[in-house]
Amino acid sequence: MARTHIYHYRIAFSDCDPAQIVFFANYFKWFDTASREFFTACGIPSWRDTREQRGIIGTPLVDAQASFKNSATYGEDIEIESWIEEWRGKSFVMKHIARREGKVLCEGREVRVFAMQDPDNALRIKALPIPEDIRAACE
Amino acid sequence: MARTHIYHYRIAFSDCDPAQIVFFANYFKWFDTASREFFTACGIPSWRDTREQRGIIGTPLVDAQASFKNSATYGEDIEIESWIEEWRGKSFVMKHIARREGKVLCEGREVRVFAMQDPDNALRIKALPIPEDIRAACE
Amino acid sequence: MARTHIYHYRIAFSDCDPAQIVFFANYFKWFDTASREFFTACGIPSWRDTREQRGIIGTPLVDAQASFKNSATYGEDIEIESWIEEWRGKSFVMKHIARREGKVLCEGREVRVFAMQDPDNALRIKALPIPEDIRAACE
Amino acid sequence: MARTHIYHYRIAFSDCDPAQIVFFANYFKWFDTASREFFTACGIPSWRDTREQRGIIGTPLVDAQASFKNSATYGEDIEIESWIEEWRGKSFVMKHIARREGKVLCEGREVRVFAMQDPDNALRIKALPIPEDIRAACE
Repeated sequence: MARTHIYHYRIAFSDCDPAQIVFFANYFKWFDTASREFFTACGIPSWRDTREQRGIIGTPLVDAQASFKNSATYGEDIEIESWIEEWRGKSFVMKHIARREGKVLCEGREVRVFAMQDPDNALRIKALPIPEDIRAACE
Repeated sequence: MARTHIYHYRIAFSDCDPAQIVFFANYFKWFDTASREFFTACGIPSWRDTREQRGIIGTPLVDAQASFKNSATYGEDIEIESWIEEWRGKSFVMKHIARREGKVLCEGREVRVFAMQDPDNALRIKALPIPEDIRAACE
Repeated sequence: MARTHIYHYRIAFSDCDPAQIVFFANYFKWFDTASREFFTACGIPSWRDTREQRGIIGTPLVDAQASFKNSATYGEDIEIESWIEEWRGKSFVMKHIARREGKVLCEGREVRVFAMQDPDNALRIKALPIPEDIRAACE
Repeated sequence: MARTHIYHYRIAFSDCDPAQIVFFANYFKWFDTASREFFTACGIPSWRDTREQRGIIGTPLVDAQASFKNSATYGEDIEIESWIEEWRGKSFVMKHIARREGKVLCEGREVRVFAMQDPDNALRIKALPIPEDIRAACE
């Protein structure tokens, strides 16, 4: 069984759109935060520290997808459950499920890489092989 | 050939994250805006007006996906090309390609429905059959 | 002494800009959330409920101001202390102080009104006299 | 007469909140973008370039204030007029007025500094004396 982490969030008024419900792109933002909280729970230092220590600037996305099952609105408390579903050579697949009192609101899937700054161009990034110690800490 | 629309946007400083590049979830926001701009270009009235006239509150998402090919940063001008790839019974598939000077940055795919407010619950929405006149205007 | 409320928040990666620090406009967003959390702590129902029961749609801003004392970055936990500094005839003044481990990051001041929808124009709003029961609950 | 610049923007659906109007904090974001567009119109290079060439990382805010006069909603085109009202020793005051077809929606005032990274702490910033060449280019 993969290790999971739960991120808690209360939906704010400003997270919702004129249809009175969460503007969908916010789920992608929250999944990104939940992903970092997952790594923090596994003991992985801040990307600021990994950058300084070993050049890893974070885990940028190669692909993101979400399906929207039920709507939610402001004042509601949600939980996002996150885990790594698959480790590949240079990328990994992260899954997220957002729920409100057990009811699934949104399911997300991210393909991420560990990245360093491109030494030839500070505005570009390069994928690294999966760091084995980080993988071990997350399992 | 499907009808297409181009949405122009200059990336703002605040659209970018500490990695100096566009925070990925903003692409989903811009695709959403590009989707509405597509309908506007096809002559479809504001969702405020369609709501009043025929109960259509907009085109909420059932599924959204994007793949990130190249990074972009603030001050850069991008173009988002949008079109409807497929019409289904109760949903449709919208595609978006974001480019900077012809270079593909991000490709997106949305599954959307035309929705009305659920008559039994003002906080819930219901999918409608594709309105034939809107479909015709968009082709 | 005015009643106060503390709102807790952990700064996310996506809250920060390419200067590595919180994009300043997010403080205004968090102050808005902290303001609503203050009312919730005082027992005031959701604006959805007050709208239905008595037409109050919320407390829109007439003026907002913030001064930025120290920067903060992602992964840091902040506290926002909020209170109502002054009740006027048709408006009230809300103050917020954001701190990280006791250090002041940002101080904010909002002038808000209680509003209803303008009966002549659904897209416009009208200020109401301060509701005495809400004021009493917040003191 | 101070030099002015006009920034054009069409309000998106996702810029609006459940009250159907622009979420107020977005004005601060747009003023920030308008401020940078002002400098661009004056010929000032990207902060990326000034950082590399002379250590200036941008113009962070010391204070921001806005008053909200009239509401606006999605699909509406607004104009933001921006100018520098006052140059001080280490800071400057920028004013913004957002209008829709001539009607004032929001007036903003920002106090900004030119900043460099603190040489003792990469996460902190330091205000610089106003660079005379930039001031001259903006007048």
